[in-house]
Amino acid sequence: MSHITTVQNWLAQNNYDIAYVSDWKNVEYFSGFSSDPIERVLALFIFPDKDPFIFAPALEVGSVKKAGWKYPVYGYLDHEDPFALIKGHIEDLGKNPKKWAIEKSNLTVARYEAIKTQFNEAEFVGDLSPLIEREKLIKTPDEIKKLHVAGDWADKAFEAGFAALSTKRTEQQVVAEIEYAMMKAGIMHMSFDTIVQSGANAADPHGAPLKDLIKPNELCLFDLGVVSEGYMSDASRTVAFGKIDDRSKEIYDVCLEAQLAAQDAAKPGITAAELDKVARDVIDKAGYGQYFIHRLGHGIGQSDHEFPSIMEGNDLVLEPGMCFSIEPGIYVPGFSGVRIEDCVHITDTGCDPFTHTSKELRVIELD
Amino acid sequence: MSHITTVQNWLAQNNYDIAYVSDWKNVEYFSGFSSDPIERVLALFIFPDKDPFIFAPALEVGSVKKAGWKYPVYGYLDHEDPFALIKGHIEDLGKNPKKWAIEKSNLTVARYEAIKTQFNEAEFVGDLSPLIEREKLIKTPDEIKKLHVAGDWADKAFEAGFAALSTKRTEQQVVAEIEYAMMKAGIMHMSFDTIVQSGANAADPHGAPLKDLIKPNELCLFDLGVVSEGYMSDASRTVAFGKIDDRSKEIYDVCLEAQLAAQDAAKPGITAAELDKVARDVIDKAGYGQYFIHRLGHGIGQSDHEFPSIMEGNDLVLEPGMCFSIEPGIYVPGFSGVRIEDCVHITDTGCDPFTHTSKELRVIELD
Repeated sequence: MSHITTVQNWLAQNNYDIAYVSDWKNVEYFSGFSSDPIERVLALFIFPDKDPFIFAPALEVGSVKKAGWKYPVYGYLDHEDPFALIKGHIEDLGKNPKKWAIEKSNLTVARYEAIKTQFNEAEFVGDLSPLIEREKLIKTPDEIKKLHVAGDWADKAFEAGFAALSTKRTEQQVVAEIEYAMMKAGIMHMSFDTIVQSGANAADPHGAPLKDLIKPNELCLFDLGVVSEGYMSDASRTVAFGKIDDRSKEIYDVCLEAQLAAQDAAKPGITAAELDKVARDVIDKAGYGQYFIHRLGHGIGQSDHEFPSIMEGNDLVLEPGMCFSIEPGIYVPGFSGVRIEDCVHITDTGCDPFTHTSKELRVIELD
Repeated sequence: MSHITTVQNWLAQNNYDIAYVSDWKNVEYFSGFSSDPIERVLALFIFPDKDPFIFAPALEVGSVKKAGWKYPVYGYLDHEDPFALIKGHIEDLGKNPKKWAIEKSNLTVARYEAIKTQFNEAEFVGDLSPLIEREKLIKTPDEIKKLHVAGDWADKAFEAGFAALSTKRTEQQVVAEIEYAMMKAGIMHMSFDTIVQSGANAADPHGAPLKDLIKPNELCLFDLGVVSEGYMSDASRTVAFGKIDDRSKEIYDVCLEAQLAAQDAAKPGITAAELDKVARDVIDKAGYGQYFIHRLGHGIGQSDHEFPSIMEGNDLVLEPGMCFSIEPGIYVPGFSGVRIEDCVHITDTGCDPFTHTSKELRVIELD
């Protein structure tokens, strides 16, 4: 519960009366309780000088307690007005908060207005989002251990995927084999939709696996990750399925050189923007700069889209405990694409990857 | 594009200058382009008297066009300021919008403030959310056809699940078999995490499948659905795995009676609240009212949490084309649980379900 103390101290220092945590991923961060409430209200209220409470759909109240939450949790039924009830619970603490801190990057305008209706004098003066982002930026040793476990599962998922490559399977069916292997082993969630893209389809970053058969003698790109104990992995490998042509080999080599250069340069003291440039310079110099159309990386932890963002313009200095992806990609439209990615954590002297599947070009024999 | 015309007419009638569609599911509804941008900006801007445009992450621009979007689409790179660029594109149309309509249930306070920074005179006077919800409330014949197809897949998924029941498999492994069967057939997304809960675990609605082996001679609850052509199914069946006791049989019979009574009562003219009460009365009368702790149903379409909400307090009168779930449940803590659910569409004279797996208590022989 020390994360809650951090927020309480911040509230006190800023003379804020209340913090409203609205992002369910952040409710999880503070409470251990993990559930996406979709359109229902799940909220954590923190006060500088009182115990916090969670407000949740009635059917989740038992699960909040089971997750180890030691403070009060109040439920509401679907036909009740959640914000009227929330007002009552806050009043029961003898409070009439005026200065509110909210998660500006998450709270919707509708809920902002609902609070305003219940608390006429409310002013939304504090933004919790940067505070929580900062808290999450440096992972604890326990979190890093969980990220390593999630990475080990991603390595196993790659092996399942490579073994499933076949000219008789579609890209989607290779995804099916990967996710089935994980689920049978008790991994119930992938970090995101598993990507398997063969040949020209690999040139569409963030595109989807097709119902097309895997193409022989082409590159095949895998991007995948799993959720383990609430922490995510995310890694990409591109393999040769059969004998690939020289141009495919060249973009692979350039992308790998960029990935290794960045992974080598990742250490305390370098900025996120400088690290992005290390990889980008390699690809630019080889003449493929126009085909590397996304940032070098994103933070990882309980989600795969947190901070730090490894990109141009981000002058954040890297510190031990920061965790993020290093994933240069080269996408030549209509031809093929390569992405090579490990997530790493910054150590005292460099960085340590969570995934260990070899990055040397792997050739999978045709079946 | 007739959905866009509806918004344009609404803007003109209300003297609004611009509509900002921020929910990616609604961008899909208007454009056919489907992608969750996570923390990036994906937005559709609609004007009363100019062509709309989409603003998207650069790497999605090609996919927007491929999805059939006929109007302009503008991209941005990760290091660029999206709202400064948006301002430029709006100015290029000769516009300086003052009266904005936004999706209050979706737009975050941070983005609301970002617009305010670019357009000092912006007033957020219109709420697009109710308009879009109303548009989505009545499904077109084409949408209903897609919901039937999604329902047919759910029926197949039940068969895969029933066939996988075994005292040698865990609940999670039965889920693995269901989702693997779907993916091999090209269904890449379930509507939500598939639920398989056996014995006492079934008493936890919205709980999760466990690593526990399936229990013999107990009820086993399945809740599942698939995404097909962007439309969802959602259905629940509870089966007897082996020989169940009399009390389990009783709660099954009460739940089934409630489900059938509500499905029989669902027709144009009845309100959502009245329909909820039809099922609730059956369960109340049998003495299990305290164990039916959620609303009777929710709308379904491109998501499984849309309108109408079938619950106490909702006086919405049902009309042909409305699509929603009818899913009474009885959850006796520490003992067992039953949920029986079909999604239906209201017809001129009654309702028609999207799923057809028998609701008579099915007994699966022990292996």
